[in-house]
Amino acid sequence: MKQEAHGETVSSSPLMKKLINNADNAVRESLEGMAIAHADLIKVHFDPHFIYRADAPVKNKVAVISGGGSGHEPMHGGFVGMGMLDAACPGEIFTSPTPDQMLEAAKKVNSGAGVLNIVKNYSGDVMNFEMAAELAISEDIKVRNILIDDDVAVKDSTYTQGRRGVGTTVLAEKICGAAAEKGYDLTQLANLCRQVNLNGRSMGMALTSCITPAKGSPTFELPEEEIEVGIGIHGEPGRERMSVKSADEITEMLALSIIKDTGYTRTVREWDSEKGEWSDLELIDPSFEKGDRVLAFVNGMGGTPLAELYIVYRKLTEICDKNGLNIVRNLVGSYMTSLDMQGCSITLLKMDDELIKLWDAPVKTPAFRFG
Amino acid sequence: MKQEAHGETVSSSPLMKKLINNADNAVRESLEGMAIAHADLIKVHFDPHFIYRADAPVKNKVAVISGGGSGHEPMHGGFVGMGMLDAACPGEIFTSPTPDQMLEAAKKVNSGAGVLNIVKNYSGDVMNFEMAAELAISEDIKVRNILIDDDVAVKDSTYTQGRRGVGTTVLAEKICGAAAEKGYDLTQLANLCRQVNLNGRSMGMALTSCITPAKGSPTFELPEEEIEVGIGIHGEPGRERMSVKSADEITEMLALSIIKDTGYTRTVREWDSEKGEWSDLELIDPSFEKGDRVLAFVNGMGGTPLAELYIVYRKLTEICDKNGLNIVRNLVGSYMTSLDMQGCSITLLKMDDELIKLWDAPVKTPAFRFG
Repeated sequence: MKQEAHGETVSSSPLMKKLINNADNAVRESLEGMAIAHADLIKVHFDPHFIYRADAPVKNKVAVISGGGSGHEPMHGGFVGMGMLDAACPGEIFTSPTPDQMLEAAKKVNSGAGVLNIVKNYSGDVMNFEMAAELAISEDIKVRNILIDDDVAVKDSTYTQGRRGVGTTVLAEKICGAAAEKGYDLTQLANLCRQVNLNGRSMGMALTSCITPAKGSPTFELPEEEIEVGIGIHGEPGRERMSVKSADEITEMLALSIIKDTGYTRTVREWDSEKGEWSDLELIDPSFEKGDRVLAFVNGMGGTPLAELYIVYRKLTEICDKNGLNIVRNLVGSYMTSLDMQGCSITLLKMDDELIKLWDAPVKTPAFRFG
Repeated sequence: MKQEAHGETVSSSPLMKKLINNADNAVRESLEGMAIAHADLIKVHFDPHFIYRADAPVKNKVAVISGGGSGHEPMHGGFVGMGMLDAACPGEIFTSPTPDQMLEAAKKVNSGAGVLNIVKNYSGDVMNFEMAAELAISEDIKVRNILIDDDVAVKDSTYTQGRRGVGTTVLAEKICGAAAEKGYDLTQLANLCRQVNLNGRSMGMALTSCITPAKGSPTFELPEEEIEVGIGIHGEPGRERMSVKSADEITEMLALSIIKDTGYTRTVREWDSEKGEWSDLELIDPSFEKGDRVLAFVNGMGGTPLAELYIVYRKLTEICDKNGLNIVRNLVGSYMTSLDMQGCSITLLKMDDELIKLWDAPVKTPAFRFG
């Protein structure tokens, strides 16, 4: 059996130490289980696969959609429900979803108020979401794609031109989902999502590699005494390999890389609905400044115990304090994972009153429930 | 530096692939991070360590307390808050908490209505919670200790006489926490907790071992091609080692061991407040029968991706269906972990209208939020 993963063709291996039946069915069977477990919140459409709100389309509301390769659960499927996503399109593991998944999801959840696609910056995701947007527009669905490119670790990477889209995605989905619920129109929502992206920065690290079902062995080699700082969520190379460090040292490296990062300039393509064509926008991040209010997000890579994430969070609060950043909200847990990888990422998002209110708004999805 | 862990003395090792600073401070620093992250819900008392509701004591309410070794997060500390626990006493990793932690926690959260201690059946936990109960009673605090011994895998084990206390603990804490909130008195609550224990059964398995910070190497050896079925949450030996199996085969082994298990009889010690002494009770589990309503809980051991747990849940629903069990509620996630161990456990709890209502009642803790 063969499977495409980011352009590589790999053979599925025999039984391995994973709770799967076989590599080719793992995504489908997991979605089937998820659909049964959360039938009150979500439904799953198969062939093409997408997860959508059980009550979609929601009248008069802009639909918020995201998607990407599987293997990062609970992102994105676990974020579908009231106050967050209307639909999520899961690709195969570490593989972009296809335009037909995105198009069918858009048709299913569009109420007429249009669709916001939140797109992580990976070449395949960007290309396919653009194609899906064009197809949807040709069927008279209003669509806007907003890019998340918040990873300060490296400029350009395997599978990506520019910065990768990581932890800020989770926060953008929560905040834009709440705004859609409150009645923001498509333009307001696209502006909000762009603002969240520009104000959020992340960086991650790996203690261990991860094992995809298709390959059955580590996706990259990380020696026993080394860690990788600045890693991507598919194990893409980071900034630096180094000997094992303490939690405090790791937290400091990640947090200071984020805090000290200054105005990153990029050109993004967005759909100009007036002109009916894609146009280029030049965007610059605002830097973090003393007195800023932030949401601090410590994310586990999947295989890291929750207790360790709190050790990271403890140090992060100290560093933010020392740098004059005021943590007004936080999130600690494994929300954007890389299968069984051990490690963590940190995201800081500059908050204002509007973002705080939207963050606090009620949400009811498999992975997020509060308010 | 030395550390006691289930009777063994082990040296803390130098830096290892964990997000910690050093093995001796890991529990304390994690609690510090947790206290800052969830200051709206909980507070942490140090020396002795316990986590308690920020609004404790809650007037006229029986306080529900649990505790046990650390390394199983979010259990128990993540379950402290409205509708669940009033306090949790964390020991060092895989090491029972001490009676002074339990006594101080009881004094802090007791409103005068008494304290229910939910005790997992491990010899150290049982002994220390009994000692703590006696100390509390001598200070005029009403206390009842209820044992959880729901693991069908083995009778007697390392650290345990009789069956071990596992997954049902999570469910008992949610259900008894809700009942305490609704005004159950101490006797009613003790009876309810005993009922939950008798109606819940669990079994777990490991794909991999786990690494404690103190030891820095796997706590037990599990060869590359083998899994262990019936494992305990500290890596205690299970029923059987076997070659790697598919998720469906593993789910079937665990689920059928639970469903087919018939009336287990045990003698437990409970405090008789009339006589003012401990007395022995003989208790028998009711068997599962066709037509029973159940809560199905698929728990991750810590290092297992969430997506795999849904593959297990998918098969579990099929098996329950085939055996005439009607799943009326479910829980899928890593709630009772063993550090970074990969694997899962299944718990089935026989439900009635009262238990369903209590399960559905609002809860607001770091790890459980709904209603």
